[in-house]
Amino acid sequence: MSIFTKIIDGEIPAYKITEDQHYLAFLDINPNAKGHTLCIPKKEVDKIFDMDEHEYLGLMKFAHRVANALEKAIPCKRVGMAVIGLEVPHAHVHLIPLNHMDEIRFQDKVKLSPEEFEETVRTIRSELLKS
Amino acid sequence: MSIFTKIIDGEIPAYKITEDQHYLAFLDINPNAKGHTLCIPKKEVDKIFDMDEHEYLGLMKFAHRVANALEKAIPCKRVGMAVIGLEVPHAHVHLIPLNHMDEIRFQDKVKLSPEEFEETVRTIRSELLKS
Repeated sequence: MSIFTKIIDGEIPAYKITEDQHYLAFLDINPNAKGHTLCIPKKEVDKIFDMDEHEYLGLMKFAHRVANALEKAIPCKRVGMAVIGLEVPHAHVHLIPLNHMDEIRFQDKVKLSPEEFEETVRTIRSELLKS
Repeated sequence: MSIFTKIIDGEIPAYKITEDQHYLAFLDINPNAKGHTLCIPKKEVDKIFDMDEHEYLGLMKFAHRVANALEKAIPCKRVGMAVIGLEVPHAHVHLIPLNHMDEIRFQDKVKLSPEEFEETVRTIRSELLKS
């Protein structure tokens, strides 16, 4: 069982932003930038391009909605997207508010307090409710 | 007019892989790894998440098909995806055959000869034809 399935099941806590029957968005606990969010399918699958077209496009549609809320919630030039998957074998779409190229290089990380994570969740949720 | 629109119009040459009425895939001329491909909408738009849902999902569906061919054509652990857009103001999806994390950091580049680019195009096209 992947660490993300444990988050879906509530066995591991996470700063959850939104979810529906098939997909979940939550904050990356080791973010490249404030607001760095992961969108995942609830059905555990390793490689994103192995998802069938319907499930893959559902995830992409879900990520689109979250990205548009992120861009309004977090000051940034734009929201970047990355799918890598060399570490956790459960497909995940990184959405990262970008001001500089470095923020999508997965090298420099930012430290946020629990209060800052919670405030970030509230701000993104508030934008989602408006959309 | 963006450099990518010039590629679409044939004003600038490119190693084109496949296209349809709305989307084009071609090799990145300064690749992170062999097979590094860009998928773009023919309609010039800066930010991918500003695309309307139908056009955005069309691009993602197009990229899915190219990614699956890439994974078969180029030896790699998996194909990664990145959308950044801080440099060229024409939405583009990077598809990158990954063996290591460094290949999605946009720092180390590989040099390919025109013959190697052409061979890469042929190999990917051959896999697309089978799909």
